[in-house]
Amino acid sequence: MLSCKRRSDPTREQCCHYVKRCELNHISSVYVSSIFTAELAYFLAIDETHAHTSTKMAVFQMGSHTHAIPMTLYRDNRAKVVNELLRAHNFGADSKPVILLQGGDNISHYDTDVDYVFRQESYFTYLFGVTEPGCYGSVEINTGRSTLYVPRLPEEYAVWMGPLLGLEDFQRKYEVDAVYYVDESGPNTDSGSVAKPAYFKGIDSRVIKSPAEIEVLRYVARVSSDAHKAVMKVMKPGMHEYQAEAEFLRHSYAVGGCRHVSYTCICGAGTNSAILHYGHAGSPNDCAVRDGDMCLFDMGANYGGYAADITCSFPANGKFTEDQKLVYNAVLAARDAVCGAAREGVSWVDMHLLANRVMLEELRKGELLQGDVDEMMEAGLNAIFQPHGLGHFLGLDVHDVGGYLPGCPERSTRAGVNRLRTARTLKAGMYLTIEPGCYFIEPLLNKAYTDPNLSKFLVKENLDRFRNFGGVRIEDDVLITKTGIDNFTLVPRTIEEIEAWMAK
Amino acid sequence: MLSCKRRSDPTREQCCHYVKRCELNHISSVYVSSIFTAELAYFLAIDETHAHTSTKMAVFQMGSHTHAIPMTLYRDNRAKVVNELLRAHNFGADSKPVILLQGGDNISHYDTDVDYVFRQESYFTYLFGVTEPGCYGSVEINTGRSTLYVPRLPEEYAVWMGPLLGLEDFQRKYEVDAVYYVDESGPNTDSGSVAKPAYFKGIDSRVIKSPAEIEVLRYVARVSSDAHKAVMKVMKPGMHEYQAEAEFLRHSYAVGGCRHVSYTCICGAGTNSAILHYGHAGSPNDCAVRDGDMCLFDMGANYGGYAADITCSFPANGKFTEDQKLVYNAVLAARDAVCGAAREGVSWVDMHLLANRVMLEELRKGELLQGDVDEMMEAGLNAIFQPHGLGHFLGLDVHDVGGYLPGCPERSTRAGVNRLRTARTLKAGMYLTIEPGCYFIEPLLNKAYTDPNLSKFLVKENLDRFRNFGGVRIEDDVLITKTGIDNFTLVPRTIEEIEAWMAK
Repeated sequence: MLSCKRRSDPTREQCCHYVKRCELNHISSVYVSSIFTAELAYFLAIDETHAHTSTKMAVFQMGSHTHAIPMTLYRDNRAKVVNELLRAHNFGADSKPVILLQGGDNISHYDTDVDYVFRQESYFTYLFGVTEPGCYGSVEINTGRSTLYVPRLPEEYAVWMGPLLGLEDFQRKYEVDAVYYVDESGPNTDSGSVAKPAYFKGIDSRVIKSPAEIEVLRYVARVSSDAHKAVMKVMKPGMHEYQAEAEFLRHSYAVGGCRHVSYTCICGAGTNSAILHYGHAGSPNDCAVRDGDMCLFDMGANYGGYAADITCSFPANGKFTEDQKLVYNAVLAARDAVCGAAREGVSWVDMHLLANRVMLEELRKGELLQGDVDEMMEAGLNAIFQPHGLGHFLGLDVHDVGGYLPGCPERSTRAGVNRLRTARTLKAGMYLTIEPGCYFIEPLLNKAYTDPNLSKFLVKENLDRFRNFGGVRIEDDVLITKTGIDNFTLVPRTIEEIEAWMAK
Repeated sequence: MLSCKRRSDPTREQCCHYVKRCELNHISSVYVSSIFTAELAYFLAIDETHAHTSTKMAVFQMGSHTHAIPMTLYRDNRAKVVNELLRAHNFGADSKPVILLQGGDNISHYDTDVDYVFRQESYFTYLFGVTEPGCYGSVEINTGRSTLYVPRLPEEYAVWMGPLLGLEDFQRKYEVDAVYYVDESGPNTDSGSVAKPAYFKGIDSRVIKSPAEIEVLRYVARVSSDAHKAVMKVMKPGMHEYQAEAEFLRHSYAVGGCRHVSYTCICGAGTNSAILHYGHAGSPNDCAVRDGDMCLFDMGANYGGYAADITCSFPANGKFTEDQKLVYNAVLAARDAVCGAAREGVSWVDMHLLANRVMLEELRKGELLQGDVDEMMEAGLNAIFQPHGLGHFLGLDVHDVGGYLPGCPERSTRAGVNRLRTARTLKAGMYLTIEPGCYFIEPLLNKAYTDPNLSKFLVKENLDRFRNFGGVRIEDDVLITKTGIDNFTLVPRTIEEIEAWMAK
């Protein structure tokens, strides 16, 4: 890596100045000025000479073998948001409301001049699809007119960054109505008037996915599925867990063009498979995988900001033991039940409870539990074996927005259900993970063994055998439709499919 | 990925409180209290019951096939820093000076609950080797006694993060003298007294590498060299640049256990090879590599926080053209000259000028330039073809500390030389990159073509042929010794070696 004084970016100060003038702190959600001010008029009254019309369709793409995301995806997102805001708000006749968003900026490693690989803020991706740091964007609510504000980089940056994009280049690249430099814009706040932060009535546009978004999500789920399959192919006892992570990253990037993953890869084998957030800095997937271990690998690629989030559980040596079959099939039954029942109009809370109930029933049949499943549910035994929620919205964020909006069902206080990231009734176009799991987690089992309300359901002489088992999770990414689901996850799921794939 | 409310970490608030009480902002360099205060006495007067002595040698390692970093490396670093401070400062007889460092913390992707993969702050790694976020550490200057302060995680985190390490576990893992929870420590600032920020007289311990550090650096340079060689093996015209990045990342991680790279990979082919900071968010190594392109791949793995930084330049199709040979050999001659001349006692500025002079001489022999090389240097033509410095310190940071300390030569204002990140005289134990390059960069060539002081040296009828050539850089990581250098970079370097390796 070369030496140059990159950090003394003169636009940085200008940006800060600009933000101060707008009286905005760092914005990470949509802000709307719902009052007309002289400042906003000024903001939009910039000379129009930079406005150009593009004739060629612009796309985001990482080579012809990867998915082309048309810029119309973002244009349509802007239109959806504008329409929802117009429906939800009664803007005055003389108002000129504007959505104003600040995009993400580079983040350094502490006091060095090395940055984290840049990731764009999700709302900014949603409305503009812009991949560069340091930008702002606005959308006029009344007209839909979109404007991008880009940093004016010093000419000498061309030596370090290559030919600098001009305003026309940005306009062609992102197909917005106008592009200005950040330092050309901004309201005059000598008057003291400032824009008012947004108030939303249940804005839902990011929750219901558009056809173009669905195609991106389908793509990144397919790439992630293939990467999981590649991992299953290379996995052997004796390897280290992070070598699975390395293979997943390679396949997602080299084959699918995904530079990022959606979250830190979780690659737990053996007892580590029961550590729900394994892979963190203190346990960086650094254990050797042993013969007889179950692997629980939770990894999802990211393409153009859109996330996949998939978990595969399988035996490291490619062949399930009887105990592994029991636990795996209990989770698979839960997943199959939800996949069969989920569709528009169904409550997500009911799906969570259905998954738990089916899993407990299977554990009862397998003689790990005894007694009545409804009573187990009542006592909260479900949250011992699956302490997390059934799944969550997925989109630009891996835990996507819209889970608990005003007017939607509130978060439950019931064990297990309280972990759900949404309690909403499903609608067609929602995109969620379905991820039941069954884990043997020491502190939770200890709790169950000592609590008489729970211990009466446990068949301890059998359950003891599983205390070092680890866990199993099956996680699919599914689109909700009017009649059911469309499962974008394409990996071996039954025991037969997994064993056949790994034996190939 | 699962849902849980990780962000509501109760230790976060406690940490903030603690920092406030200490009157410390985020510390990214060594802070020393050189005055005795009641607070510092309190700080160290914690009950000693947590202190334990370890009997087994602790290491950082990513499996037995990877390098084991002994914790004694960090103990020795602490001793070095303490000794230098004692030499440089006249602490009063009744003072109890203490080094107090804040380690790094997790950084979220904007307002989501997904974090960047954690990277530790370099000084904290240097003194403690701790890989977890949210820690503090102190070293008593008079006694060398080391103490680690770790966040007290809520018990229920064991469900998500696995068994939580206790104080004894941390002590065994990092071999410090004592470990406390962050919430157990901290001075009482009711008195209003606060610690004074450090004043340093040229503290140099991070600049001169210890034997144990040298072994880590040798390891990560070897892993990175092998990863570059793996890339050269898979590279073919028609591939995309980021596919080289993906292969480098895979090899470094899967084979070398390196979860991080030291900086964003630069993988430029064709004209992109002349873009010095290619690979950034706006140009994410996303072009197809064409037959006849030169590849310039600048990538370095990171192991235990220690960095490699290596550049290989080679033809995508494995066979140099005559023009490519000319430029490549000019850079190789510059690199060979520096490798032959660098050793203890030599000025780094002289090495930079030597590399430039040798390169210009080769370009003159190749009939791209004409006239006297000394006059070219005087006119600044060297900075047209190599606008960056010859190299920089390397260690825990890819641009490591210690370049321009008080008492060391100041930064030059001369073209090209002004880009050097140090102007110091070399000492044995320094670790630097040697990275001469030759680039055909449009804005700089345009400047040279139009400036009569520069254009007179150009043989335009020949040089015109190179305007879309791109560039070549050769970057090695070398240890300075009393008699020369020890080159840790082990890749094919001559044209014959590269062609033979790629043909294999």
